[in-house]
Amino acid sequence: MPADAPAAKIDGTKGLGAEVVLYDRATQDRDALTAGLAAERGLALIPPFDHPQVIAGQGTLGLELAEQAADLDLGLTKAPVLVCCGGGGLASGIALALAATAPGLRVQTVEPAGFDDMARSLATGQPQRNDRTAGSVCDAILTPAPGRLTLPVLAAHAGPGLVVTDDQALDAVAAAFRHLRLVLEPGGAVALAAALWGDLPPGPVIAIASGGNVDADLFAKAIRRGDRTASPPTPTGPTGTAASA
Amino acid sequence: MPADAPAAKIDGTKGLGAEVVLYDRATQDRDALTAGLAAERGLALIPPFDHPQVIAGQGTLGLELAEQAADLDLGLTKAPVLVCCGGGGLASGIALALAATAPGLRVQTVEPAGFDDMARSLATGQPQRNDRTAGSVCDAILTPAPGRLTLPVLAAHAGPGLVVTDDQALDAVAAAFRHLRLVLEPGGAVALAAALWGDLPPGPVIAIASGGNVDADLFAKAIRRGDRTASPPTPTGPTGTAASA
Repeated sequence: MPADAPAAKIDGTKGLGAEVVLYDRATQDRDALTAGLAAERGLALIPPFDHPQVIAGQGTLGLELAEQAADLDLGLTKAPVLVCCGGGGLASGIALALAATAPGLRVQTVEPAGFDDMARSLATGQPQRNDRTAGSVCDAILTPAPGRLTLPVLAAHAGPGLVVTDDQALDAVAAAFRHLRLVLEPGGAVALAAALWGDLPPGPVIAIASGGNVDADLFAKAIRRGDRTASPPTPTGPTGTAASA
Repeated sequence: MPADAPAAKIDGTKGLGAEVVLYDRATQDRDALTAGLAAERGLALIPPFDHPQVIAGQGTLGLELAEQAADLDLGLTKAPVLVCCGGGGLASGIALALAATAPGLRVQTVEPAGFDDMARSLATGQPQRNDRTAGSVCDAILTPAPGRLTLPVLAAHAGPGLVVTDDQALDAVAAAFRHLRLVLEPGGAVALAAALWGDLPPGPVIAIASGGNVDADLFAKAIRRGDRTASPPTPTGPTGTAASA
């Protein structure tokens, strides 16, 4: 895990019996580090997003949401489905599941400002990298570039990508605390932030709330910002492109 | 509402279009106040707990939990069901539902220390009152005495009552934040507190988590206490009686 991962995440993982190896996300290459560890110790490497079975597993969330959306009294069959996006495993799994079962529900990725490699990759049709690897409260979704497998899936079945600021992510953490009674980490609240303050057409919106690994101090800071759902901050589009790119 | 209700609860109710009338829970009688308002304005009074339809409505939670418990892989048919208890509406509704559909699941009420009128009433077979009407962080469940309808139901189908301290309630708020990713108010976390630290026989326990009207400052204070699920505080029984009374 990155050394700046929330203590709650590091401790929780150790509590489940794991050995946690920390690395510096600004100076070390995670892929090289884990490949080395796997070779050295004879371990199987399970990538966090860029693997067919990981993507398929995360896609079960798409199957569930399609079923739930159809079950609602309104019989929701057409809506944007906003998904928190790092490397794009969750988003591509959901996009594949929805393409097969509920094609009117279309995934739009949501990333933190400054780490919108997927939005720019989808907008340009070419894989784009982020300039930085650290520097956002959305720690769990600060991947350097789209996955080799996830980008083609999302190019075919998702987009355009949306971007929210760290302030909007923290405001969405506060909104989930106040209105949904859910504990979200900032990176798990970016889809909700885009649903609340993003540039979307009128009508129903589905947002994935995913990830609650947040330390008490940061959560306390977020919820003390107050409830801004009544006075929306200004939404932003992907860096350097229009929001509708 | 009591004047010391969480601002989030007062503001949220106003936000839904209600007029909120505040009273002092230490010096004013809620029942007299609301009866006067109802007569003066020609309003229908909906009691918070002591009414057959309110109890029946809250009992739907018992139907749902019996269904979910039976659906679990373990096919849970025998367990204590811990329920946060003020006047006893929620507890008596669940107790009636379980008596009819899953008699092996038995309700035990959980109250804050110093406000354990129901535990003492169940232990003695006679309605008992609390000495105080205020003075606990569990604001929503500080009722003066059991309901006229709820006590006979609980005497027939529930008990013994359990009691937790305010510190245990706050520790349970922290545990729900950390492990369940749920926002609970202290009064909504007393059942979880009893499940974690109460004097219960070994085996599965069902606890109702109910109520998330908590202001950011109190929630921040609770979650900063840290996770005490690993080092349990000492449980307590009903005031002046053994925990197994």
